[in-house]
Amino acid sequence: MDLQLAKGVQDIAPEDKILMNEVVGKLKTVFELFAFAPLETPIIERYETLTAKFAAGEASDALKETFQLTDQGGRQLGLRFDLTVPLARFVAMNPTLKLPFKRYEMGVVFRDGPLKAGRTRQFWQCDFDTIGSESMLADAEILAVWEKGFSSLGIDVELKVNNRKLLNGLMEQIGVKEKESALVAIDKLDKIGKDGVKKELIERGLSSKQSEEILALIKTGVSLEQLKSRVTNLEAQQGIKELEELFSYTKQMGLKKVVFDASLARGLAYYTGTVFEAYAQEGRITSSLAGGGRWDDMIGKFMGGNRLVPAVGASFGLVPILEVLKEKAEKLGVRNKSPAQVYVMPINTIKESLALVQELRENGICADISLGKKGVSKNLEYASSLGIPYVIILGEDELKKKKVLLRDMKTGAEQLLNTDGVIKKLKM
Amino acid sequence: MDLQLAKGVQDIAPEDKILMNEVVGKLKTVFELFAFAPLETPIIERYETLTAKFAAGEASDALKETFQLTDQGGRQLGLRFDLTVPLARFVAMNPTLKLPFKRYEMGVVFRDGPLKAGRTRQFWQCDFDTIGSESMLADAEILAVWEKGFSSLGIDVELKVNNRKLLNGLMEQIGVKEKESALVAIDKLDKIGKDGVKKELIERGLSSKQSEEILALIKTGVSLEQLKSRVTNLEAQQGIKELEELFSYTKQMGLKKVVFDASLARGLAYYTGTVFEAYAQEGRITSSLAGGGRWDDMIGKFMGGNRLVPAVGASFGLVPILEVLKEKAEKLGVRNKSPAQVYVMPINTIKESLALVQELRENGICADISLGKKGVSKNLEYASSLGIPYVIILGEDELKKKKVLLRDMKTGAEQLLNTDGVIKKLKM
Repeated sequence: MDLQLAKGVQDIAPEDKILMNEVVGKLKTVFELFAFAPLETPIIERYETLTAKFAAGEASDALKETFQLTDQGGRQLGLRFDLTVPLARFVAMNPTLKLPFKRYEMGVVFRDGPLKAGRTRQFWQCDFDTIGSESMLADAEILAVWEKGFSSLGIDVELKVNNRKLLNGLMEQIGVKEKESALVAIDKLDKIGKDGVKKELIERGLSSKQSEEILALIKTGVSLEQLKSRVTNLEAQQGIKELEELFSYTKQMGLKKVVFDASLARGLAYYTGTVFEAYAQEGRITSSLAGGGRWDDMIGKFMGGNRLVPAVGASFGLVPILEVLKEKAEKLGVRNKSPAQVYVMPINTIKESLALVQELRENGICADISLGKKGVSKNLEYASSLGIPYVIILGEDELKKKKVLLRDMKTGAEQLLNTDGVIKKLKM
Repeated sequence: MDLQLAKGVQDIAPEDKILMNEVVGKLKTVFELFAFAPLETPIIERYETLTAKFAAGEASDALKETFQLTDQGGRQLGLRFDLTVPLARFVAMNPTLKLPFKRYEMGVVFRDGPLKAGRTRQFWQCDFDTIGSESMLADAEILAVWEKGFSSLGIDVELKVNNRKLLNGLMEQIGVKEKESALVAIDKLDKIGKDGVKKELIERGLSSKQSEEILALIKTGVSLEQLKSRVTNLEAQQGIKELEELFSYTKQMGLKKVVFDASLARGLAYYTGTVFEAYAQEGRITSSLAGGGRWDDMIGKFMGGNRLVPAVGASFGLVPILEVLKEKAEKLGVRNKSPAQVYVMPINTIKESLALVQELRENGICADISLGKKGVSKNLEYASSLGIPYVIILGEDELKKKKVLLRDMKTGAEQLLNTDGVIKKLKM
């Protein structure tokens, strides 16, 4: 049998999964510190839900990249392509839910798309959203979670903020009709530069003058105050007002990483107000580490009728975050393949070694024991290959002395210690 | 639009997901204490891998209940129906993996089967296995993980142990040809009783005499010693020997919940030696809470050739475990819908309240703040409905006194405290 993974998916081996669990665990702690509650939606959704035109948006790749399947009853199903559509479906299906509803969800999503570097067909998303609050306090809290989250991961970031009402209003002000299409081009400013965007704006139907005007308005480094003085359109003024309120809150919360960036657009069609993106301030990863924004319309559309259910949220990009952390870990040279702190090697002392390894575990020390592997050198080689930092050798000599031999695998140093001594040393 | 979940799957709302995260977190801690390393295999596998006849086994429901799909390249894929087949595939694909390989994986699996009470089409499994050790030390460690795991969950259990070689040998000894089929009947002893099993054994081709003989040999309460004296078959003797060795290790490890049960069979075809099941000693859940055993053949078959890659492992049954814990929690009346310990309600003090809520979070206290909700009673009602234990009211009066009003939502008691006082109180 020719063994292969399904195309475009991957195993996450222990050395990577250990790091990933650390990240996911830290994000969970931060989400809960900010009172976001966990939700788990299913991986399988009705195809009709996933393809609702107000969900992914007609232009979105997600739609044509949805994995389709049927159950034995012939029902049309699909694998979720994000965690936002299932959240909107959940809120719409639970009209008695207390609002604001603050939830986080971390889990895998699927895209049956072309494979590029760093893209897989199954990948993790780490989302958090506040449903049911129009207040800019909710937007400020998203940024506070990001700042705390990245600081707990040890990644120095800059949090860029803009507002779709401002962008849309600015385009309206200079007579642009193709606003949604123009946003897709503006979103590429980082990647293709000013000239590239100008060219694409013209392709998307803007005049050369309009393209230059919009690029001048949102030029790098323009402050909210500078821009404010040039805004005449009502929607753009509303965007400015929201940003001012938001920045007053982030200041009162003591956030230090938040900056206004008039050119930040975000690709997705469903954003309605604030948009955010997070970028690493060091290292070689230049793509955004997190993104999000306000999406006030989708849930109401799922519910039908005219109810507005405001929503704001963001995602930590687990894939680029892990890239940043791996880059750091490689510098440090630490990538364990086992959670064990110590590996116990019995030499004709199986009974006492079993009691010892259990005592270590009772004391909260992650401990492994040789499972019948023969020979000191083979056992040492095994512990070393897994990156286990300490080995205990328990032979008959040590037993007589009521001690064990603790070997530091990094330095090779060995110490004769009693069990309490080992526990004290490994608990440090 | 008629909003529905896909048939047979469900949302796990915060009050349930909070409990589930506690369980999963405790299991993770225990797995790692015993040096099992995390692995994540993809949800999508090649259909060919999932349906290999040595994987699920030809008789298994899993095979006909596999969700099938294709990618845009027309490749035949399926959703994994357990975590064992992906593990076998992973080990077979990574021949340089250091053995023994101790891994745990917790994740969802899928079965497109008929819906009964307590069965869903997407459900969690929490597996841990040791690959590459024939030693009964590995089997003993599985039981040690169970004992520690259930004790950390606060569930009193009995861990039943048997051995397939013993069962197969006993059947051989009395001339039973249809051994694998007979095991399926014996596995139902708990559910359909002795008479029911006898009837089914006869339907499966055993004589009435054989059925009575096997039931007499494995009768409830028979000890390993008693059975040993009646065993003549070589394979059964090997089973006895393995069990004796296993029990000597579990004794040396100080395990207290392990019992021999000669009638324990386990349904799956792929078990080759030790089999285990865990049962709650209290409450109304009578089905097993965990199951497992030795499966020495599957990985070698995936690899082709004649290599034997021994394996032993088990699963914590998250669904019945959560049932047991919910039963307990209902008695206690505690099912929070939010991780927040405290909800801050500003009354014209938004600036100071934002600083306060951030200070609480910096001190590790899960804290929420009113996101523009108006009125004291509405805010109290909201905090109460989420089960948040404390509310802080910060009005202009309190501000003048440099204090906040802390309300205990259970008793209604209110205290004027400064921030340090609040932190001290909530950190308890």
